[in-house]
Amino acid sequence: MVNGRARHFRTVTFDRRSNEVRLIEQRLLPHQFKVVATPDYRATAKAIKEMIVRGAGAIGATAAYGLAQGAAAFRGKNLEQFERHIEKVFQTLRAARPTAVDPVNAMMQVRRQLRTGETVIEQQALALAAAEEFAAEDVKHCEAIGRHGANLVGAGAKVLTHCNAGWLAFVDIGSATAPLYAAQARGRRFHVFCDETRPRSQGATLTAWELAQQGISHQVIADNAAGHLFQRGEIDLVIVGSDRTLGRTGEVANKIGTYTKAVLARRHSVPFYVAIPLSTIDWNLKSGREIPIEERHESEVLGAWGAAKRGRREYVRVANPSSTALNPAFDVTPAELITGIITPAGIFRPEQLWPERHKLGFGKGEKSGA
Amino acid sequence: MVNGRARHFRTVTFDRRSNEVRLIEQRLLPHQFKVVATPDYRATAKAIKEMIVRGAGAIGATAAYGLAQGAAAFRGKNLEQFERHIEKVFQTLRAARPTAVDPVNAMMQVRRQLRTGETVIEQQALALAAAEEFAAEDVKHCEAIGRHGANLVGAGAKVLTHCNAGWLAFVDIGSATAPLYAAQARGRRFHVFCDETRPRSQGATLTAWELAQQGISHQVIADNAAGHLFQRGEIDLVIVGSDRTLGRTGEVANKIGTYTKAVLARRHSVPFYVAIPLSTIDWNLKSGREIPIEERHESEVLGAWGAAKRGRREYVRVANPSSTALNPAFDVTPAELITGIITPAGIFRPEQLWPERHKLGFGKGEKSGA
Repeated sequence: MVNGRARHFRTVTFDRRSNEVRLIEQRLLPHQFKVVATPDYRATAKAIKEMIVRGAGAIGATAAYGLAQGAAAFRGKNLEQFERHIEKVFQTLRAARPTAVDPVNAMMQVRRQLRTGETVIEQQALALAAAEEFAAEDVKHCEAIGRHGANLVGAGAKVLTHCNAGWLAFVDIGSATAPLYAAQARGRRFHVFCDETRPRSQGATLTAWELAQQGISHQVIADNAAGHLFQRGEIDLVIVGSDRTLGRTGEVANKIGTYTKAVLARRHSVPFYVAIPLSTIDWNLKSGREIPIEERHESEVLGAWGAAKRGRREYVRVANPSSTALNPAFDVTPAELITGIITPAGIFRPEQLWPERHKLGFGKGEKSGA
Repeated sequence: MVNGRARHFRTVTFDRRSNEVRLIEQRLLPHQFKVVATPDYRATAKAIKEMIVRGAGAIGATAAYGLAQGAAAFRGKNLEQFERHIEKVFQTLRAARPTAVDPVNAMMQVRRQLRTGETVIEQQALALAAAEEFAAEDVKHCEAIGRHGANLVGAGAKVLTHCNAGWLAFVDIGSATAPLYAAQARGRRFHVFCDETRPRSQGATLTAWELAQQGISHQVIADNAAGHLFQRGEIDLVIVGSDRTLGRTGEVANKIGTYTKAVLARRHSVPFYVAIPLSTIDWNLKSGREIPIEERHESEVLGAWGAAKRGRREYVRVANPSSTALNPAFDVTPAELITGIITPAGIFRPEQLWPERHKLGFGKGEKSGA
């Protein structure tokens, strides 16, 4: 992302000369900024698996580059061997995050384009072009979200956000943060409250770090504090991202705690927006109850990761040692609590998604939902 | 508190022979259980100030014992000198937690009784008897809360609680936990979800530790998770404590995040109870907006305290190093969201407190509101 004071970073980039994918090492943030390079597709798959890179758009682009990287490393002219090699690369990258849909969609897009080539060299070049196109599209989609959402963020607005749907989760710009960055680019000043977003604290670590990089006024709050701020009239607008939005019902699955914020926003008549790329719309499920809610390891709730003395990253056990925890990672917000869904194609009321599905790219062949 | 499997502990006790106050060192919990003895009233004041002991009833009893301890240490027969000494002890203990009302109320009760004696020795004995009486009353009040609230906790109930209003916050039994312990004593089995209660994590540390000691089935959850559990029908009842309840309006000030849980409980038609000793009722304020909301240091939100390797207690910085935080410590829940207030005198609807104020001890001379 562009920073007025520093140089330009993207979460995921590709270096053609060295055939390396370059990634911001997100596990070290916010205490250390480091870009790592993966020298081959296996290392790229490992980076996805070990969450050096996370977030829908970011892992999609990483997998797309990984496939192009694997293709470029092939030596020889035999197309059949090359195809087998591509299949192996594809499966290795897919297995890195087996439940995620974005890497698969991204790699399918690359593979389709690759297959239009007639020689290995041609296919290698097409793969890289397709990966670059995927990354560029991801940025364009986020830019469009920002364009549509910018006017929601008025001068002096106080905005609440939850978790991280920022540029670290995409190639650049982000979804929930896109309207903020667009409003900032138009010269507006405003203030953001970042829910710390326990148990993994993505708000306190990643979103706060992003906003600090961008020079946007912000404060971290405990997840418990938003209710009080709503009561005191301190929040004008809520914008969050989404891991999966149901096209048929307008229900939104997002990081645990999102639903609570939507309930509070409604009680206090504060608009609640969800910003999403079209790829996160699920056109199949008929009810939010069908969305599987991942339960993560209890250690996340029972303790915290942070920088201890001398900056060393350390886990501390906070909770009573003999107690256990329950750790649902997502919740589902019903359509009735959502003011609008900000997409690259415009802002929609949640119940409009289905009737407007053709405008949103659903039912137009292979590109549907991708 | 009684533990079926272990010996009996009270949060605060007094040893007449050594003239020492004995306190559970709460700052070490849940990672270490230790009872400390304060050898004189200055050490007792320091223990209050440094939060070795915390919670309304517990610091009240500690101050009461501290005053008796200071009285007993006086050598001589001169009543006037003794009175000056008592005043010094009183002010030292009061200054330990200057905004808290409980230590002052407790010490006033001790001093009133002390003054009925005619000699120093008599007054010393009366002070100790009064302090013991205060502690015994604190226990009785909590027992009565348990008696009135026990039937709210049915067999198989799933109960949500927030922060710690347990026996560690009182001499014994606690307020929000009293109905749980009383239901357990009646042979009922149920399950408790402990909100971790960021930023200070009293739910994950103190409440979880208490419930583990008592052998009550429980799980810690992130503060973000309750909304999802409400949605799934996993919560039957909410019980919390209160730092200040307005007698005129039924509004309840309690640990930050309480209001949010009340809003969720209402949305899901789950009963929301507040358990309080009468001493926390404020009969003067006319609106919850008048309650000062303490803002605590941002470091609480920006990091976490826990046990690191080898059990050493350590602070880790979680949030982005260049970001700041906002840390309101309490919020106010309006009467309309509260199903009932469980007091030692019975369960009242919040709007009943004022019309029933005489039954609740208000307007009966010196004991009012104490």
